[in-house]
Amino acid sequence: MLKNDLFLKALKGEKVSRPPVWMMRQAGRYLPEYQVIRKKYDFFTRCQTPELAAEITVQPIRRFGMDAAILFSDILVIPQAMNIEVQMQPGFGPYLPNPIRTPKDLETVNIPDVEEELDYVMQAIKVTKEKLAQEVPLIGFAGSPWTVFCYVIQGQGSKTFNLAKKCCFSQPQLAHQLLQKITDTTIAYLKAKIKAGVDAVQIFDSWGGMLSPTDYQEFSWSYIQQIIDALKDLAPVIVFAKGGWYALEKMTNSGALALGVDWMISPQKARQLTQNKITLQGNFDPTRLYSSPKKIKSMVKKMIDEFGKDQYIVNLGHGILPDIPLENVTAFIEAVQQYKSE
Amino acid sequence: MLKNDLFLKALKGEKVSRPPVWMMRQAGRYLPEYQVIRKKYDFFTRCQTPELAAEITVQPIRRFGMDAAILFSDILVIPQAMNIEVQMQPGFGPYLPNPIRTPKDLETVNIPDVEEELDYVMQAIKVTKEKLAQEVPLIGFAGSPWTVFCYVIQGQGSKTFNLAKKCCFSQPQLAHQLLQKITDTTIAYLKAKIKAGVDAVQIFDSWGGMLSPTDYQEFSWSYIQQIIDALKDLAPVIVFAKGGWYALEKMTNSGALALGVDWMISPQKARQLTQNKITLQGNFDPTRLYSSPKKIKSMVKKMIDEFGKDQYIVNLGHGILPDIPLENVTAFIEAVQQYKSE
Repeated sequence: MLKNDLFLKALKGEKVSRPPVWMMRQAGRYLPEYQVIRKKYDFFTRCQTPELAAEITVQPIRRFGMDAAILFSDILVIPQAMNIEVQMQPGFGPYLPNPIRTPKDLETVNIPDVEEELDYVMQAIKVTKEKLAQEVPLIGFAGSPWTVFCYVIQGQGSKTFNLAKKCCFSQPQLAHQLLQKITDTTIAYLKAKIKAGVDAVQIFDSWGGMLSPTDYQEFSWSYIQQIIDALKDLAPVIVFAKGGWYALEKMTNSGALALGVDWMISPQKARQLTQNKITLQGNFDPTRLYSSPKKIKSMVKKMIDEFGKDQYIVNLGHGILPDIPLENVTAFIEAVQQYKSE
Repeated sequence: MLKNDLFLKALKGEKVSRPPVWMMRQAGRYLPEYQVIRKKYDFFTRCQTPELAAEITVQPIRRFGMDAAILFSDILVIPQAMNIEVQMQPGFGPYLPNPIRTPKDLETVNIPDVEEELDYVMQAIKVTKEKLAQEVPLIGFAGSPWTVFCYVIQGQGSKTFNLAKKCCFSQPQLAHQLLQKITDTTIAYLKAKIKAGVDAVQIFDSWGGMLSPTDYQEFSWSYIQQIIDALKDLAPVIVFAKGGWYALEKMTNSGALALGVDWMISPQKARQLTQNKITLQGNFDPTRLYSSPKKIKSMVKKMIDEFGKDQYIVNLGHGILPDIPLENVTAFIEAVQQYKSE
């Protein structure tokens, strides 16, 4: 039914003429057409208005022709739906005025009816699917329970998320109870998104990579595994754990169809750790988009050669930065579209 | 001559009864006796007054009896000496009001006579050595050229150091010229420190781990290697690259006597990547010091068992956090002092 099914083929490990490409945070701040909308509506209004979210989602597809769209939204809609206030402060980022730190705080946290509380997301998916008109697949996403937990405990972004980790190490029971509540909500949320029409889901574990391998297993991976188990028969699941190279071997046999990798691991090493058994997604350094278009093209070509064109989805190793020139994005996407192996 | 030479023995790979222990940032904010000095003198006054720097350096040795002292100072004394203004703003961190961004900016950067410009460091070393009275060795340190460069370009701390990386990728010539100036200054600085009496030097590559393996080689490691080459016959060199697991194989044969590792790599994996050929230092997660003293002791014991007692220096995987309870530090140090292999 989809006109361009490169992305779904790569997820399943089928042979392709060239790898598909999309970019983390492709719907967003580097686009002038996004800035027009941004000036009129605040962040959560953009997320919560289906027409706006859908429009933002399809903007990069129109301009660059990526092989997949990803729904414009935010990982922190989950705590919002769980009765935790989340503000998005311009120039500062997320701010949660009432972080969860004690068993009493935890009592105020709900496991919501996501189809009701996050109905606006489901509506946005439906409008987006109409706009996309079967051109490319649509990805839905959620933060990993650990990554959402980091914000819920810390109350804001952080270099070390020391309060989140302090909670795990000094109040492990509280930490696990909260992580389980977030996990249960996330499973219901992603199931509803799949029902509403997304073609694949990605779990963003942005802060997993600050845990030791042992603590990662206990506080992050065990919850991601629950999500994969609940979803794997419903839609393809991609897991991206920034900095999580040390868990790649384990992730390979988890039931996820693809694993995201960041640029701190070479393609060869990533293939080795995953034994060539799974589709990989990544791993261009987002700041390497500051290079010249010519340099970008040659680096993308080399990256595809190194990962191999099959079982591979071209992407950045983290979200695109707001000040990347449009012609550099064009160079990145075109290098993939024009790829020919030798 | 030294009464306790465990640290130097471990550096040389000699057999020891138990591994030595020290903690990154052991001279600092978690100590009440440091807070007394902090209330009276601002940050750079503490660095620049030999009596104060020496007193702060020996405070943790007196209280906990670590096996090595590390001179209280800052990596940003180097750009200061190079004619780049550096302020330390309480609650914000380093701030460089005139960051280097253009060839014209670069012209204002000097390679100083470090023995003159940083004479206060050499004096601090002499006072510290007297205070230590040959009890334990003294470590001197510098930031890696890349890490210092990050601050000099960015002008402040950052989650991504996007401006520093942008400089490398869009003005590589400028980047390399500045990196070379920092390297030349750092070599002269560490030579002077060794002459003044430090027993070993550590290079802190705090931000190397945000570069891809290829870019790490070009923008960080090649300069660290120059420093090692210049110093290795004068004193033991320790290199700590946070997040630099992917470069461990290369570092093993660099002439450094020891490599620091963070807690995102298991002891077994670190030993494997370095082929059991070099002394390793680390790698306790600093936030794991929020655990109970009992838990800390069992984790330290396990960590030593996994690294092995020889060719090993017990340390954290990054600096100690300011709100760690003193009894937890005691547990960490005592677990090493009481270590017996089975």
